[in-house]
Amino acid sequence: MRSVITGTGSYIPSIVKKNSDFINSNFLNEDGTPFGNENEEIIEKFKAITGIEERRYASEDLNSSDLGYLAAKKAIEDAGINKEELDYIILAHNFGDVKSGTIQSDVLPSLASRVKYKLGIKNSGCVAYDILFGCPGWIEGVIQAEAFIKAGIAKKCLVIGTETLSRVVDEFDRDSMIFADGAGACVIEASEKGTNGVLSHATQTDTLDECYYLFFGKSFNKNEDPDVRYIKMLGRKIYEYGLNHVPLAMKSALDKSGLDISEVKKVFIHQANEKMDEAIIKRFFRLYKTKVPKGVMPMSIHKLGNSSVATVPTLFDLVKNGKIEHQEINSGDVVIFASVGAGMNINAVVYRC
Amino acid sequence: MRSVITGTGSYIPSIVKKNSDFINSNFLNEDGTPFGNENEEIIEKFKAITGIEERRYASEDLNSSDLGYLAAKKAIEDAGINKEELDYIILAHNFGDVKSGTIQSDVLPSLASRVKYKLGIKNSGCVAYDILFGCPGWIEGVIQAEAFIKAGIAKKCLVIGTETLSRVVDEFDRDSMIFADGAGACVIEASEKGTNGVLSHATQTDTLDECYYLFFGKSFNKNEDPDVRYIKMLGRKIYEYGLNHVPLAMKSALDKSGLDISEVKKVFIHQANEKMDEAIIKRFFRLYKTKVPKGVMPMSIHKLGNSSVATVPTLFDLVKNGKIEHQEINSGDVVIFASVGAGMNINAVVYRC
Repeated sequence: MRSVITGTGSYIPSIVKKNSDFINSNFLNEDGTPFGNENEEIIEKFKAITGIEERRYASEDLNSSDLGYLAAKKAIEDAGINKEELDYIILAHNFGDVKSGTIQSDVLPSLASRVKYKLGIKNSGCVAYDILFGCPGWIEGVIQAEAFIKAGIAKKCLVIGTETLSRVVDEFDRDSMIFADGAGACVIEASEKGTNGVLSHATQTDTLDECYYLFFGKSFNKNEDPDVRYIKMLGRKIYEYGLNHVPLAMKSALDKSGLDISEVKKVFIHQANEKMDEAIIKRFFRLYKTKVPKGVMPMSIHKLGNSSVATVPTLFDLVKNGKIEHQEINSGDVVIFASVGAGMNINAVVYRC
Repeated sequence: MRSVITGTGSYIPSIVKKNSDFINSNFLNEDGTPFGNENEEIIEKFKAITGIEERRYASEDLNSSDLGYLAAKKAIEDAGINKEELDYIILAHNFGDVKSGTIQSDVLPSLASRVKYKLGIKNSGCVAYDILFGCPGWIEGVIQAEAFIKAGIAKKCLVIGTETLSRVVDEFDRDSMIFADGAGACVIEASEKGTNGVLSHATQTDTLDECYYLFFGKSFNKNEDPDVRYIKMLGRKIYEYGLNHVPLAMKSALDKSGLDISEVKKVFIHQANEKMDEAIIKRFFRLYKTKVPKGVMPMSIHKLGNSSVATVPTLFDLVKNGKIEHQEINSGDVVIFASVGAGMNINAVVYRC
């Protein structure tokens, strides 16, 4: 029994936030002192490292669950299934519905329940739950769907990743430029025919030193209420952690599949930072003593930023639909989904299209 | 392959909040008007329906993840396993770590990661994630652990339910008296010998009418900031929903197990409301045209209140350790775990001890 992605969908929020929109920001150091450099220089350096030119923010009237619903609707249409046949709705996020202009996360009921409600699904047997697993949440949802299919308790699952990071950023922190909003989804079905589907996977959680590399912390502006907290990260630590561990996790998954590195046609990696992603891919192929094939790593970060759980399913959906220049996937292609994020968590799925 | 609970643990918070502590409360109706009745009368009626005499609150220095860690530590000790052998830490909650005196949920990193960190587990292969599934979250975690064991991707899982509802209650709402803090946990292991373990399970999610029966809403006090939100419920709707659906879900699980109703020795049901729980059990046994056996339903609500995801694992742990008067479980006993809550979600697990 294989778990096959039969439909994909994504929602690209409407508000385009360009790097130049940050030109008047008052960026501070962690200790509250002025950052020193001119914003023009900060932005230029930021772009050189992360690759981000602009990112998308959700309009005020939409929350994370709305974005998730819009992506899910497309994935169900793409799969051509009857929505009432879904056994699971697995929704990955990290901050819940944060209404524009407020600071509380609303996760009661779960976002998966909200999406089920919006989809109008009547079937009580469609179990809807949320998973919190940092940026790798959507890939972990795919792995859980695969487990349910293997365990014989599901045949059709909807896996969604949705996030509105724009509502939890500290405007005084340069890292706020990284984060974006978005949603991606897929339908995964059990299939006994063919050779496509999930071939293998690997997941790890590292907490001993890494637990708080990404955390919820106070503003760099010491005049702000210290009890109001924002997404914060130790960028350098994450970079090193990603470089040291993601290639090995990808190798672990690929080796489990029994396939040769030469069969890997694409790597859909979490869009966290272009330089980090490039370094990870380089190290991954180096583990097999081979060079990085041209075009193996489609990127969406330049225009979409880092939308956490949404990056991988969105990127896959865009490439599948020919919306990333010079990128395509064909039936039979072996691809790897990989991610790293808060937890710290890493995962990788080897998948034959 | 069966999934066997080899260890349990719970943490009962230290602060005892008695019904009489609410005697000076300013209870209001939803529209902000005074409730009218004397508090003494309100509290008496509340006790008659819910059974709650007192409830526990966590001390200021502890957050939900701390409670979960304390319960988990005991479960691991009880199971007598090496913590490094755990393949999964599955942690159910609904509001994350809400620091005393603040209104933001902190779930970055996930509470499961925090527990793994506190436990000092080095093994990267121990995957830690959070599940949001309303009050039935812990039971759903057990079902997910069973799925991972059946799918061959786990042998030992730690499943935790932890919550600090005292930090999200509206003091102007009588329902605030229902809610409590607590944590319960168990270790589940794959076993090929014996006949004990998870025999069957059933889960459902109903959203069409039910999605917002439990929700995050503003205070009944109209002078409060409407953007500050609290746990809110439509008590009457939930009561009716529970009564109409939980007995059938329990029957669905029991029928899947192939066992006769006469074999059910105990039902560990979510401690939401004593009158509701009694009515559910009555209907459940009536579905089999049989009377409710004396002592079949251990209760902890009188002293512990409704601590959401924590009630069922805590109650099971207490009975297992002879801490509920006139209650015991013996090897070979068939028990049912059942819950209902936000989502709306219902689940039931049939388990042989």
